Amino acid sequence: MTSTDSADSAAQKAPAKAPAKDPWDLPDVSGLVVGVLGGTGPQGKGLAYRLAKAGQKVIVGSRAAERAVAAAEEIGHGVEGADNAETARRSDVVIVAVPWDGHAKTLESLRGELSGKLVVDCVNPLGFDKKGAYALKPEEGSAAEQAAALLPDSRVAAAFHHLSAVLLQDPEIDEIDTDVMVLGEERADVEIVQALAGRIAGMRGVFAGRLRNAHQVESLVANLISVNRRYKAHAGLRVTDV
Amino acid sequence: MTSTDSADSAAQKAPAKAPAKDPWDLPDVSGLVVGVLGGTGPQGKGLAYRLAKAGQKVIVGSRAAERAVAAAEEIGHGVEGADNAETARRSDVVIVAVPWDGHAKTLESLRGELSGKLVVDCVNPLGFDKKGAYALKPEEGSAAEQAAALLPDSRVAAAFHHLSAVLLQDPEIDEIDTDVMVLGEERADVEIVQALAGRIAGMRGVFAGRLRNAHQVESLVANLISVNRRYKAHAGLRVTDV
Repeated sequence: MTSTDSADSAAQKAPAKAPAKDPWDLPDVSGLVVGVLGGTGPQGKGLAYRLAKAGQKVIVGSRAAERAVAAAEEIGHGVEGADNAETARRSDVVIVAVPWDGHAKTLESLRGELSGKLVVDCVNPLGFDKKGAYALKPEEGSAAEQAAALLPDSRVAAAFHHLSAVLLQDPEIDEIDTDVMVLGEERADVEIVQALAGRIAGMRGVFAGRLRNAHQVESLVANLISVNRRYKAHAGLRVTDV
Repeated sequence: MTSTDSADSAAQKAPAKAPAKDPWDLPDVSGLVVGVLGGTGPQGKGLAYRLAKAGQKVIVGSRAAERAVAAAEEIGHGVEGADNAETARRSDVVIVAVPWDGHAKTLESLRGELSGKLVVDCVNPLGFDKKGAYALKPEEGSAAEQAAALLPDSRVAAAFHHLSAVLLQDPEIDEIDTDVMVLGEERADVEIVQALAGRIAGMRGVFAGRLRNAHQVESLVANLISVNRRYKAHAGLRVTDV
């Protein structure tokens, strides 16, 4: 057991600094184009739907453009579909919602198109057996750190790991009762992702550390799957006292 | 991104079973004696205070009996103090709230006393540097799995990882706004720990998987420390839709 407060006391001993910026003073992201790689899967589709419904311009990407176009038509709300490369090229922010086993290959093949973009990794490396889900540990530490290693010319953040595709896609559900943990190295990038999450009804984007602490956030999905089984729920997470 | 719902659909395809037990039908634990190893540290003391205030019989343990007795007097609410061995011997449930660097040694030295007991590990293996906290990966997978390996004759669960010692110890705070993720192999043991967590005002104990998924729960404290720094908060976690 380690006190979660311990870093606070260390910070209190640091020399006086300029007043801290309000952590809820987030940028206006309404003009950004958001691409979703893996946008034809349940999570990617659900996220595209929620962002587009909130007024964001969204492009869903897939390996095959026609599948992406079909998914986009199904989602509505002005969503467009394109192949992954065009999706990356035309977007300011690119959400990576592909299956873990295609993660490295997909990103490597799009290194050029993703150059200069804000890449938001939401991939959860998990294995499954009879006892349920368990965490896989990528060589780089986490899916997000793998993305950062493969995309040296992109800005990489991690977020949107703990969402239920069922809830995201259900048009009867107006609000998703969950916070989104956002991780990254650059505060400006993290704040863009927080602001995007905050556009979805019910959600808040909460800064939750650097990419070196992404593994536990990604693999916590294994625990939420256990929660969902036991309680027949679509569990999310709220950070309290924030 | 992996759907947290995926296990649900697998479960739905399974053959029909007897009606599932209500996951909130938890045992009466009011008669159990709870020992807290590391009960003179801020987290251990805070947890002892909250449990004793809720009516639980609590013994705080320390290497030196006199330090434990002094801590117990400070806590009040009928808490007793003893050395770690006596604490373990006299308790039904033993919470392990020692620092990570003393974890293995403490448990090894108490193997006999902890035999047959329900041991609840709440240790978070973390490292700290200038960038803040980061996860340490124990050879056994997690602190809880290390405890299970070192204590073959005990029943090991994991819980109480995400609590703020400041909030726990503050007598002005009546309720702690957080859920407690409880992990373990045996449902009956997990339910005892859930019930104990549920005795503390504001808390619920929520089943969150097997011990092989304890590492991410333990190391998520690194992320909560980042949250606390950014938001000047004492963050906790709520599981939504449960």
